[in-house]
Amino acid sequence: MTLGELAQRFDLQLDGDAQRTVSGLATLASAGPDDISFLSNKKYASQLLDTRAAAVILHPDLASQCPVATLATADPYLAFARSTALFDRSPAQPEGIHPAATVSPGAVIANDASIGPNAVVEAGARVGSGASIGANAYIGHNTEIGAGTRIQPGVVIYHNVKLGARCRVHSQAVLGADGFGFAPGPGGWEKIHQLGGVSIGDDVEIGACTTIDRGALDDTVIEDGAIIDNLVQIAHNCRIGKNTAIAGCTGLAGSTIIGANCTLAGGVGVVGHVEICDGVHVTGMTMVTRSITEPGSYSSGTPMATTREWRKSAVRFSQLERIQQRLAALEKKQ
Amino acid sequence: MTLGELAQRFDLQLDGDAQRTVSGLATLASAGPDDISFLSNKKYASQLLDTRAAAVILHPDLASQCPVATLATADPYLAFARSTALFDRSPAQPEGIHPAATVSPGAVIANDASIGPNAVVEAGARVGSGASIGANAYIGHNTEIGAGTRIQPGVVIYHNVKLGARCRVHSQAVLGADGFGFAPGPGGWEKIHQLGGVSIGDDVEIGACTTIDRGALDDTVIEDGAIIDNLVQIAHNCRIGKNTAIAGCTGLAGSTIIGANCTLAGGVGVVGHVEICDGVHVTGMTMVTRSITEPGSYSSGTPMATTREWRKSAVRFSQLERIQQRLAALEKKQ
Amino acid sequence: MTLGELAQRFDLQLDGDAQRTVSGLATLASAGPDDISFLSNKKYASQLLDTRAAAVILHPDLASQCPVATLATADPYLAFARSTALFDRSPAQPEGIHPAATVSPGAVIANDASIGPNAVVEAGARVGSGASIGANAYIGHNTEIGAGTRIQPGVVIYHNVKLGARCRVHSQAVLGADGFGFAPGPGGWEKIHQLGGVSIGDDVEIGACTTIDRGALDDTVIEDGAIIDNLVQIAHNCRIGKNTAIAGCTGLAGSTIIGANCTLAGGVGVVGHVEICDGVHVTGMTMVTRSITEPGSYSSGTPMATTREWRKSAVRFSQLERIQQRLAALEKKQ
Repeated sequence: MTLGELAQRFDLQLDGDAQRTVSGLATLASAGPDDISFLSNKKYASQLLDTRAAAVILHPDLASQCPVATLATADPYLAFARSTALFDRSPAQPEGIHPAATVSPGAVIANDASIGPNAVVEAGARVGSGASIGANAYIGHNTEIGAGTRIQPGVVIYHNVKLGARCRVHSQAVLGADGFGFAPGPGGWEKIHQLGGVSIGDDVEIGACTTIDRGALDDTVIEDGAIIDNLVQIAHNCRIGKNTAIAGCTGLAGSTIIGANCTLAGGVGVVGHVEICDGVHVTGMTMVTRSITEPGSYSSGTPMATTREWRKSAVRFSQLERIQQRLAALEKKQ
Repeated sequence: MTLGELAQRFDLQLDGDAQRTVSGLATLASAGPDDISFLSNKKYASQLLDTRAAAVILHPDLASQCPVATLATADPYLAFARSTALFDRSPAQPEGIHPAATVSPGAVIANDASIGPNAVVEAGARVGSGASIGANAYIGHNTEIGAGTRIQPGVVIYHNVKLGARCRVHSQAVLGADGFGFAPGPGGWEKIHQLGGVSIGDDVEIGACTTIDRGALDDTVIEDGAIIDNLVQIAHNCRIGKNTAIAGCTGLAGSTIIGANCTLAGGVGVVGHVEICDGVHVTGMTMVTRSITEPGSYSSGTPMATTREWRKSAVRFSQLERIQQRLAALEKKQ
Repeated sequence: MTLGELAQRFDLQLDGDAQRTVSGLATLASAGPDDISFLSNKKYASQLLDTRAAAVILHPDLASQCPVATLATADPYLAFARSTALFDRSPAQPEGIHPAATVSPGAVIANDASIGPNAVVEAGARVGSGASIGANAYIGHNTEIGAGTRIQPGVVIYHNVKLGARCRVHSQAVLGADGFGFAPGPGGWEKIHQLGGVSIGDDVEIGACTTIDRGALDDTVIEDGAIIDNLVQIAHNCRIGKNTAIAGCTGLAGSTIIGANCTLAGGVGVVGHVEICDGVHVTGMTMVTRSITEPGSYSSGTPMATTREWRKSAVRFSQLERIQQRLAALEKKQ
């Protein structure tokens, strides 16, 4: 790939030798003479001076500070994101059904799909064109895997789950396990069999060890373009809106409804049966205890301190009602 | 199934056509004329008016508001739970050992048990009558799976683990991995090999990606009827009492003892070596830092606010000791 | 094994019959006459009186209180840890490649390594001497597994991951899944393909269902002797220092740098791009929102209370800014 081809492909303004070839993409600090690099945060502009990269993707305003060739654009982070696809050397599974796979005769597999070794595909399942089912993965009865969707090794998808096109599901994710529904009975908990499914749109990414439970009666729904990190729990009957991003270790209780274009940082918890409107950002480890009806940023928690200092604040937290009463008494005396 | 049969089976009082047949169970909003539905929360009573359901399971007090046939009972939620079993269409694995399974000649498999494709069952393991081991699951040496217990695809159960009857273990759960035990040594951490096992009672449900570690010397114990959601961590030597429920993303440190009939909401954390008595409820994301000796409800954390408002409170939290001192100084001056 | 052999092997001072043989290791309460036991916490010294153990590993200061034979040492916990290895009966996988494994002809497997049933090893992968790949595990292209490293059943390791010697990786762990990197584009999130790998040192332990993502451009790095519990999320480009311990349910956002000899308790969350120096302890469920440059112990959160009491404090927390203003107004009037 030449710098000229890169510039044309991603609509970048090249200042440098268009014929120069590059073979990799690296940080400013580690790039060598065969790599391109990028600068998207002005804070790191000083790293330009020492870079050995062949060329740097950056904002036009910073081009003059760069000692090597530049590929300028108003959104260098986006151009960087797009160029990663060119340099991705991830191995692809070969087309066809591996001889060690177990595919039911009642499953429908596209000719150009790929089924890895020891993968199991049950009756009534459909695997679309160009889709890939990794080694040791499991696809349940009547589950649909859309075109171009990539299921990584070890993923388990229960019956009656529908994934759209171009999704990526990382290893050990579980889609369609039973929602956690039980009624108290005279002899203990009685299971509410989970009769719904899971419905996932197009272009959804689901992280490793993430669990998305099937609905109790209706489906749990993940809309197009949502991105979900590792170790996230999405309980039964949740609905996640379009292009919403959920970071790792977040847990959503049952029937949580989240709008479009939201971002939940890591470790957030949402109690059940609340609704979060479009355009909400929730900061890390926040406990969302009620519905959110206005876009904006929301938080909870307390700031980190040394354990010694924190203990003092924590004790006083328990006394806050009394502190407020003492303050009110003093005010009255004035 | 007719309404009359339903009424008789679950001891419901039918007001309607006993011969009418139904084939599904759905919410009031989505039920069609072949479905029954249910109403357990008075808050949703207004949805009765528009339902197209054939009949509705509800409390006798609400029957008069229902425009369609009614199946009345004092506990409609329990009746709903029980009726889900009738409409569950989850595919069952066929009896017998799948040819792609790897079963040690030293394992004992009941004739009517089911071992799925690519499942591995090691020597000394026992799989009881009617039990089912899902595709790609692993059952370690000398592990016992009780009668009617259902192990979903991909589950890993290490050696010397005992599960009782009628349990359900969801995909990617790990039972019996090493507890996190290390002693500081002169050259770094020295592993404490975990010599205990895991002992799980009857009628226990274990969620997807949940981990229950083996004990250091004695067993980690889960008692009959406990229900555990997804992504829960139960460390070595914990003991979970009868019919206790633990929601998703909760983590219990080593040697936590929890009594019977407790409920831990999602994202709770329990420090090690504490004891929680019977009948305790812990609200979501609570940090349990000491033993609980009285039944009741317990909490910690701070309420959610806009990030802008939260920042102000968070700063003042760090100053609480100083605020208390200033207040005390003022009180002295009075 | 005789008491004399134990004393010699671990440099313990025996007071008792050197010829007596023992076959197990148990707690003071459950040890029988064929077991040794240990006492490392003075708090439990009273349990010595009733023990039926053949001998007890303990501190010399407590030896006089012990009614049975003693194995004295200045660090009884370390001696206990080392002796667990002697009594570990965990089954080992037999050497060689199981006939149901799928090993690429382009993989290099040491003669004395073990590849379990249904394990998949891709081209370019290398499995070192004495290493063991569990049943249903997956080893991606060009991934290296060091000598003596033990991969438990069901683990998934993507391509271009390097593990050192004598590591242990527990079931369902995922090493090398894509980091959670996306750039906002005009039509939604655009994936940043993750071009880095994961590099893991020697003697590292990784818990069940723990996820360690591959780097965006450079590698995610875990240094020698680090120990990581279950259900931990380590995002792309993190670096974990030597002998650092991370307990269960902890989540590290991208590019977190943690020094050597740190301990993070369970449920900790660390925001991205912060640095934690050597020798830091973080208490359970702490939200680490900034870099830590001084060794010591750090905390956040609020103490547990009854839900009734907690609600009062929580309401006042939201009013802290106003409380501080009222206090300042009173002070002014003095």
